Amino acid sequence: MKQEELATLLREIIRDEKRILTDKVDLYSYSYDASFGTYLPDIVVLVMSTTEVAAIMKLANKHGIPVYPRGQATSLSGGPLPVHGGIVLDLSKWDNVLEVDAEDMVAVVSPGVLTADINDAALKEGLIYPPDPSSSNVSTIGGNLAENSGGPRGLKYGVTKDYVIGLEVVTPEGEVIRTGGRTVKNVTGYDLTKLIVGSEGTLGVITEATLRLYPKPQATKTMMAVFDDIVDSGKAITKILSSGILPSKLEIMDNATIQAVEAYEPLGLPVDAEAMLLVELDGHPAAIDEEILRVEKVCKETEARTVKVANTSEEANELWRARKLVSPAIVREKPTKISEDATIPRSKIPDMFQRLKEIREKYNIDLVVFGHAGDGNLHPNIIADKRDKEEMRRVEQAVEEIFKAAIELGGTLSGEHGIGTLKAPFMEMELGEVGLDMMKRIKESWDPNNILNPGKIFPQPGQRLVLTNG
Amino acid sequence: MKQEELATLLREIIRDEKRILTDKVDLYSYSYDASFGTYLPDIVVLVMSTTEVAAIMKLANKHGIPVYPRGQATSLSGGPLPVHGGIVLDLSKWDNVLEVDAEDMVAVVSPGVLTADINDAALKEGLIYPPDPSSSNVSTIGGNLAENSGGPRGLKYGVTKDYVIGLEVVTPEGEVIRTGGRTVKNVTGYDLTKLIVGSEGTLGVITEATLRLYPKPQATKTMMAVFDDIVDSGKAITKILSSGILPSKLEIMDNATIQAVEAYEPLGLPVDAEAMLLVELDGHPAAIDEEILRVEKVCKETEARTVKVANTSEEANELWRARKLVSPAIVREKPTKISEDATIPRSKIPDMFQRLKEIREKYNIDLVVFGHAGDGNLHPNIIADKRDKEEMRRVEQAVEEIFKAAIELGGTLSGEHGIGTLKAPFMEMELGEVGLDMMKRIKESWDPNNILNPGKIFPQPGQRLVLTNG
Repeated sequence: MKQEELATLLREIIRDEKRILTDKVDLYSYSYDASFGTYLPDIVVLVMSTTEVAAIMKLANKHGIPVYPRGQATSLSGGPLPVHGGIVLDLSKWDNVLEVDAEDMVAVVSPGVLTADINDAALKEGLIYPPDPSSSNVSTIGGNLAENSGGPRGLKYGVTKDYVIGLEVVTPEGEVIRTGGRTVKNVTGYDLTKLIVGSEGTLGVITEATLRLYPKPQATKTMMAVFDDIVDSGKAITKILSSGILPSKLEIMDNATIQAVEAYEPLGLPVDAEAMLLVELDGHPAAIDEEILRVEKVCKETEARTVKVANTSEEANELWRARKLVSPAIVREKPTKISEDATIPRSKIPDMFQRLKEIREKYNIDLVVFGHAGDGNLHPNIIADKRDKEEMRRVEQAVEEIFKAAIELGGTLSGEHGIGTLKAPFMEMELGEVGLDMMKRIKESWDPNNILNPGKIFPQPGQRLVLTNG
Repeated sequence: MKQEELATLLREIIRDEKRILTDKVDLYSYSYDASFGTYLPDIVVLVMSTTEVAAIMKLANKHGIPVYPRGQATSLSGGPLPVHGGIVLDLSKWDNVLEVDAEDMVAVVSPGVLTADINDAALKEGLIYPPDPSSSNVSTIGGNLAENSGGPRGLKYGVTKDYVIGLEVVTPEGEVIRTGGRTVKNVTGYDLTKLIVGSEGTLGVITEATLRLYPKPQATKTMMAVFDDIVDSGKAITKILSSGILPSKLEIMDNATIQAVEAYEPLGLPVDAEAMLLVELDGHPAAIDEEILRVEKVCKETEARTVKVANTSEEANELWRARKLVSPAIVREKPTKISEDATIPRSKIPDMFQRLKEIREKYNIDLVVFGHAGDGNLHPNIIADKRDKEEMRRVEQAVEEIFKAAIELGGTLSGEHGIGTLKAPFMEMELGEVGLDMMKRIKESWDPNNILNPGKIFPQPGQRLVLTNG
C-alpha cells in the first residue's frame, strides 16, 4: 500500500493530524535504535489509546502491513527496528496513567511511562518498583515489558517479568484481552502475562500493565573488594551467597574495564587488579551492619587485596561512581560499542572469563567485561569503529564465539537484552530445531499473517550476524 | 484401541511388565484424585525415563489416545483425572534425580521427587526451596510444576513458577525439548518454562526441572493477633505490609474456622473472635526482633484484642498448631470438603468476607474461611456430605457465587489449585471469549490431536459445575 493511501486510512482512526508522521526526516528518526542497522518505516503513528491501537492492528492485519511497536528505542538487540517497513507505533507519548495503590501494593501504568518514574511514584508511598535497567531514566515501561528488562538489582529482586501481574494487550488481529489481574497469585489457565512479557512485541501490543510493588528497604550498605586473581573473586561471590546473604547488587569489573574507567576519570582505581567487586546490601539496618562484616571477612578469606566499606552515602556513591562511568569511559576510546549480555551459571564465571580472554586475543579486539556477577549475567562489551570494515568482521566472529562459549558453559545467548534482529541467527544453536519450532507455533497461532514486529527472534533462512549495515 | 492391543504396543516401549497396569483393581486406584469424580483409564504406565515418555507420546499421538500425566494425585481441581480414558502416565515412581548444586544455587530433579525432599536436600547446603504447598510431604514436584502450586510462604517468596529456571519436556507429539537452563536470567525467545509450569499437564510432560534455591533465612519469629472485627484484621495486614515489613507468612482464620478447630482440639482459641492472624517473619535475628515489635504495635493500633509473640520455637509451633488443625477439624464435621482458592486483591479482603457471609446464609451451607491473607489468596472451604444430593446442589450454587464474587472484586477463580475439570465452566467468565481463545490457540498449535490431558482447563460446550458424580 502506498504511504498516502495508508495515511488516509490512519487518519480515520487518529483524528489528530500531528500524531501521524509521513515526512522523510521524521521517518529517519524512527529508523534506528541503540543497536545496529537503519530501516525506514512507511509511516509513524503516535498512539494514545487502546481503541486506536486495536483499530490500527485490525487495519494492518487486513492489509498485511507490518507493525512495529516502539518505546524510547533504547533496545540493544534491535527490538523496535522496522526491518520490513510498514507502520511504527510510537507508544512513548502515551504516559497518562501512573497510579500507585499502596494497599494492594501495585502500580497501574500506561506503556509510555518512564520506568524510573514508576519507582519514584512508589517511593512516595514507602514502596519500590525494583527492576532497574541502566536505561531506566529514559526507557519506557512498555519497552521494558516487551524485552523483560533486567538490571543490577535482579540478583535479589528478579527482573521485570517478576513484577508484572496483569496486562491489557491488543492482539495482532486487533482484539483486546486482559491477562492476569491485580492479584499476585493467579493460576487461571495459561500464563499469558509471562508469555507476552519478554516476547519482544511479537505477540501483542501492551497497552496497560499492573505491576507489583515491594516495601522499600530501610537501609543500604556498599562495599568494594579488589582481587589480584579473577578466580578468587568468583570464589568470593559463591561464598557470600552460600553464607545466607543475598546482596541487592553484586557487580564485577575486569582489568580492562578498571583501566578504561581510570583513564577516563582518575578515581584512584587499582589498574593492576584483575577484578573488582561492588557489593550492595539492603534491608534492616541492624541486619546489614552485621552482614557487611561477614561479606568483608569472606572477601579477605578469598584473597581480596583490599576491601573498602562505605560509611556514608557519599562514600557509597563514590564507590558506585566507578561502575557508573563504565559506559561513557569505554565509548570514548572508539565510537562503536557492542554490548553483549551472554549469561552463564554462576559457577562458570571464572571459565567464562578465561574464554573471553582467549577470544580477545584470537580476534585482536578491544573487549572489556563487567556486569551482574551475582547472577552470572556478564556484559562483555566490544569497542570498535564501525567504519572499519575489517575490524567489524573480526568483531562479528568474536561475538559469535562469545555466544558459543556461553551456551557450551550451560548458559544463554541473552540474559536481559533480548534477541531482536542481532541474535536471531543463533537461536537454533541454543534451542534446537524443535525448541524453536514450538515458539514459532505460538507466534503463528496468534499472528497468522505475521504482521506484528516481523523479522525479530526467529531467524530468516541463512540469516547471519551483520554489524556493518548501519 | 482395545486394552490388550494397547498393552502389547506399550510392552515394546516398557520392557518391565510390572510397570504396565491393566487390572481393573489397579485402574480403579487411578480413577480419582483429591477433587471430585471418578474416571477409569484404559491402562496405567509407570514411566521412569524421558525415552519412555517420548515413545509413549509418539504412540498415543499416532493413534489419538488420550494421555493423563499424574504425580501423587493430590490435585484439588481434577488435574490428573483421566476423563476420557486412555493412558495414565504415573510419574510418581521416577524419583532418582535430586541434585543440589550449592554454587549455582539450583536443584535438578526428576518429576517423581517429593517436594518436601527438595527442601530437605537444600537445607543440608544452607539453602531452601521456598514453595510450600500444604501437600508438600506427599505431593511430587511434577504435580507442583504442572499446577504451579503455592503455599503460605508465597507472600514473601512467590510460588513454584518463580523458582523454575529450566525444564526438560516431552511435547504432545513426543519430541524432547529443553526450555530455559541453569541461569536465573534468560530472555532467549518466548518463556516456554513459565508457560509450561501451571499449564496443568496440557502442553507437555515435564521430565526434569532445574529449580532455583535461596539462602536459608537465619531465624524466624511468630505472632498471633486476635480481632473482634474482621475489617480491623484487614487494616492490620495493610499496615504491616506498607510499613516496609514483608512477613514470610500472613495467615487468617475466620470465626467459623476458629470454632471448628477449638471443637476438634481445645487449644484455648478465642471462639467469639471474628478473625485471627498468624504472622511469621524470617530473616536476620536482629531485624526480625525489631520488626516483630512493630508488627505487634500495628496490630494493637488496629484494635487487636490480644497479641501474642512466641518466645521459643515450641511456642511458635503451638501458635501454628491452630492453623495446622484446620483441615482435620473441618472434615470431622462432614465428610466432603470443597476447598476453593478464589483470590482477590488484598484491599478487597473485607469485602470478600462480607460476600462470603452472604453466600453462607443464602445457601445455608457450612462455610469456613481461612488462608493466605497477605496475598489475598483465601481458602473458602465448604463442608458437606456428597451423599446428600440436595445439599450438594446448594453447594454447587454457592461455589458458583464465590467465583462470581471473586471476579467482581477484581480477583481470579484460582490462586493456587488450578482449573482442571472443576473450574473449566467458569473460564470464560474471567477471561472473556477472546482471552480464552488465545489460550486455546496455543494448546491447538502444540497438541493438534488434543491427546495430552484433554478435558482440562478448556470447557466443553455447555459444561457446568457438577460435584455429585463422584
